[in-house]
Amino acid sequence: MKEEEKEKIRTKAFEYFQRAGIVLSLKEKEDMEIADLGLNDFERTGIVLVIYVNNSRYCAKEMVLLPNQTCPEHRHPDHDGIEGKRETFRCRYGKVYLHIEGEKTENSKAHPPAGDEKYYYVYHEIILLPGDQYTIKKNTLHWFKAGSEGAVISEFSSPSDDASDIFTDPRIRRVSND
Amino acid sequence: MKEEEKEKIRTKAFEYFQRAGIVLSLKEKEDMEIADLGLNDFERTGIVLVIYVNNSRYCAKEMVLLPNQTCPEHRHPDHDGIEGKRETFRCRYGKVYLHIEGEKTENSKAHPPAGDEKYYYVYHEIILLPGDQYTIKKNTLHWFKAGSEGAVISEFSSPSDDASDIFTDPRIRRVSND
Repeated sequence: MKEEEKEKIRTKAFEYFQRAGIVLSLKEKEDMEIADLGLNDFERTGIVLVIYVNNSRYCAKEMVLLPNQTCPEHRHPDHDGIEGKRETFRCRYGKVYLHIEGEKTENSKAHPPAGDEKYYYVYHEIILLPGDQYTIKKNTLHWFKAGSEGAVISEFSSPSDDASDIFTDPRIRRVSND
Repeated sequence: MKEEEKEKIRTKAFEYFQRAGIVLSLKEKEDMEIADLGLNDFERTGIVLVIYVNNSRYCAKEMVLLPNQTCPEHRHPDHDGIEGKRETFRCRYGKVYLHIEGEKTENSKAHPPAGDEKYYYVYHEIILLPGDQYTIKKNTLHWFKAGSEGAVISEFSSPSDDASDIFTDPRIRRVSND
């Protein structure tokens, strides 16, 4: 993705943080991560991240999903003798359609990006509104999508190591070299 | 503290959460912890807490300090074979005067509650405004005080076990039986 395009997305994401009442430092604004996951389809599949802290004991970040944007299906396995990441998502703004392993939700509200259904296996849907949260166990497949107003989500978790994430979609590269 | 008084404080704290743009669930509002630490001096010394999540791997909470209120000096030691708590304070609203071990700050802005100076040993002052954060190592003495507008602080940390906290003031009982 071109730097100019990234800058536009950062500006847009920043507006969502403001709507959620979240104040960021100048450095956090600059370091905002635009994760397109190597799919080059950011409007539909991707996420914006601000890492507050990620040390050997815990991690906290904020995430923005643009309207109807999906963070694609993945899990956090045990790796290198380290326990897989457990994480708590807390909706701060908008609406989040979280999908995890479990009984398929009939008449679910959210669906994977059209054409990419083959990369999505789990369909137990949990809807999070501002003030709602949900904790996802390690190694559990999950994906999540914003409603039409977008969403701001806080994540509290054990340490985060993106490189060990396993995505269902084999085209995805979590750690971009761009 | 009487339940009526606690309810008044909850209402006031809730106003601060609203100013910080933080949305709480109904249960979180009801479960809001009014910690007077057994001192019966809440306006000057105490804190309001909302625990989002506290499991075996990480913890996240929100805290409110009323104007000029102090959370008194304490540390989180190793205990029962468990490593002492590491924690990151992030200011969301107002101003926080955090004091930790280290070189004494000349002309510091905040002071311990008058008359209680003998229970305060550390005077390295760090000022946190909205968007600022600071990580405190385990077993490090610290205390923190709000400015005249009060403060809302997010805490991200390793697991929290209040019973193992060690306060400098021997009158303090962290886990109240009230």
